[in-house]
Amino acid sequence: MSFNPQYETIGNALVAHYYSQFDVGNPAARAQGLQDLYDPENSYMTFEGVQMKGRDAILQKFQSLTFQNIQRSITKSDSQPLYDGSILVSVLGQLKTDDDPVQSYNQLFVLRPNATGFFIANEMFRLVLHNN
Amino acid sequence: MSFNPQYETIGNALVAHYYSQFDVGNPAARAQGLQDLYDPENSYMTFEGVQMKGRDAILQKFQSLTFQNIQRSITKSDSQPLYDGSILVSVLGQLKTDDDPVQSYNQLFVLRPNATGFFIANEMFRLVLHNN
Repeated sequence: MSFNPQYETIGNALVAHYYSQFDVGNPAARAQGLQDLYDPENSYMTFEGVQMKGRDAILQKFQSLTFQNIQRSITKSDSQPLYDGSILVSVLGQLKTDDDPVQSYNQLFVLRPNATGFFIANEMFRLVLHNN
Repeated sequence: MSFNPQYETIGNALVAHYYSQFDVGNPAARAQGLQDLYDPENSYMTFEGVQMKGRDAILQKFQSLTFQNIQRSITKSDSQPLYDGSILVSVLGQLKTDDDPVQSYNQLFVLRPNATGFFIANEMFRLVLHNN
């Protein structure tokens, strides 16, 4: 057991960094800014129910998102430590891309320690929509 | 690395079992039905931003919920394997307790293997509310 006592600080810092890199209108810059957060082989990302594995597949998905502008507001962020030193973070927020309406979303991360800090071992993203 | 290839089947089965035990109007029966899912010391649960650790604290919280009737509808459920054999599950759903309005919620679980199957190592629950 090695629960990281700084799980909340680390979780919030990583989410802030992630969004600072994600929320750019240039898809190539977005992928470049996020690439160090993923493992080449062992990172999982499920985006609206579609699962990708490995850095390249995940960045390719992010690079395919065509918004020019995104505004984001985090409503709640919860963090917990895992027994192996990983950190679980769940974000409830709202976002607005270009001229689309404001959308509610949930995003979660499992941050796992590596030689240089933490990487995103697991990630899920869902808009809060019940009728599609 | 030991990603469990049956993560989706196991994740969905555990969530179905969890809700079958949670969604009873008798608080004592609810706590009894869920007790085997938690570790005495090392399970974390964050309920609307309030964190509990260990089986007793978690069950005490669940036993304090006073609804008589609950109706629940799962909109989406996403699962992923973790490198250590654990399983991550995120549920987006709607629920209605007694005469309250229908509420949107997000709930997530990290299921960790133990000697007899899986237990809930980490759990988070949030209603989707942006204005409170």
